[in-house]
Amino acid sequence: MTTVTTRTVEYPADGLTMVGHLALPVGAGRRPAVLVGPEGAGLNDFQRRRADTLAELGYVAMAFDINGGRWFTDPEEMLARAIPLLADPDRIRGIGHAALDVLRAEPRTDPDRIAAVGYGTGGAIALELGRDGVDLRVIGTINALTTGRPGEAARIRCPVWVGVGSEDPIMPPAQRDAFTAEMQDAGVDWRLVVYGGALHAFHHPPVDHTVLPGVGYHPEHARRAWRDVVNLLAECLPVTE
Amino acid sequence: MTTVTTRTVEYPADGLTMVGHLALPVGAGRRPAVLVGPEGAGLNDFQRRRADTLAELGYVAMAFDINGGRWFTDPEEMLARAIPLLADPDRIRGIGHAALDVLRAEPRTDPDRIAAVGYGTGGAIALELGRDGVDLRVIGTINALTTGRPGEAARIRCPVWVGVGSEDPIMPPAQRDAFTAEMQDAGVDWRLVVYGGALHAFHHPPVDHTVLPGVGYHPEHARRAWRDVVNLLAECLPVTE
Repeated sequence: MTTVTTRTVEYPADGLTMVGHLALPVGAGRRPAVLVGPEGAGLNDFQRRRADTLAELGYVAMAFDINGGRWFTDPEEMLARAIPLLADPDRIRGIGHAALDVLRAEPRTDPDRIAAVGYGTGGAIALELGRDGVDLRVIGTINALTTGRPGEAARIRCPVWVGVGSEDPIMPPAQRDAFTAEMQDAGVDWRLVVYGGALHAFHHPPVDHTVLPGVGYHPEHARRAWRDVVNLLAECLPVTE
Repeated sequence: MTTVTTRTVEYPADGLTMVGHLALPVGAGRRPAVLVGPEGAGLNDFQRRRADTLAELGYVAMAFDINGGRWFTDPEEMLARAIPLLADPDRIRGIGHAALDVLRAEPRTDPDRIAAVGYGTGGAIALELGRDGVDLRVIGTINALTTGRPGEAARIRCPVWVGVGSEDPIMPPAQRDAFTAEMQDAGVDWRLVVYGGALHAFHHPPVDHTVLPGVGYHPEHARRAWRDVVNLLAECLPVTE
């Protein structure tokens, strides 16, 4: 089997010291690269392992941080950070750009071949990078159908793929409709997958503390959604040397 | 490369002589099998080639007929057949069962491992086989979000995957909502993919005659939707001997 190399990267963003996780594939040359954004609770081992898995597939992958190294176990504390953050596109773009700069600075990264994948808040960041006109090969999000400032979606120049649970009360049908209308009106190449019966954060294994109402793990759809992300990357950002 | 064997199969259904297309993979033993249903216009070479491609992937595949060997080039004639057909679940089940019987009778078919995939009317037939309690491994449809008789969706015992174009006026958002509500209420394991910007029959290359309003080819989503179907089969009906 392949062996990936990982390292912790610290960098400033949003007034905090972010603690990201960079995973490098075997080999020596430049490779396509993927940003992986975590949900509002923050970066944890589960999302770090996603980066490792992508590195095993041949990508340079960086699971980035949004909360200054913290993973919130208290929903109140998480919401106190996430809600104002999500209301401020400039702040979340700043967090995204800081992570992107770290990824681009990695010598193994091919800076012309970068994708952004994210979950919840991390997905909102991926979308805002697109709305900021960043040259990405694809944007993929799970549980993040966040709309942007009027007109800015027209700056998205890559395919957009979004997945959501049908029963997610945080991303309800009206939000799906608003998001897809924004994409369609802007002429974006978009796709939406609705995972039947799934709640918010369905992709994440259960955690050992209180979570928000409307959150729940769905093992089958979790596997499918990850495979969908991997297939999306294979389509839009194939691994070549 | 592999070489598939194909043959034309004639069988009675709906008072007509149906002319299906059966494609067998290399080898000798039983294999998982797939029904492929065409849209209302009928079975043509494009759908026959889908069966051939599935046979190249190792499946026994049968592109079935719905119109007694005819492929309608006149939209009026097509609608005159399709509309009453789609309004009568028993008739379309009959067409599906007849095709299924032919596929099951093929010695290369493993009768315990059958999937049904269909486009438009052919997709409606695949769904009705599920609502009739047929033991399928997965049902996948494109442009077919047809609802069934009350309560019968509870008889579907396999995953259901449906894909549709966001701009399809024949399968509009209200129809998507009605279909997904039916699946969710029945406890079906379902997924919906919305292909942004795509019209009805987006998966089908342009034809050289008048087509219905709201129909249009979308090459990229066509490729993606086919890959999605192949990936779905790999998930739910992997090829093993």
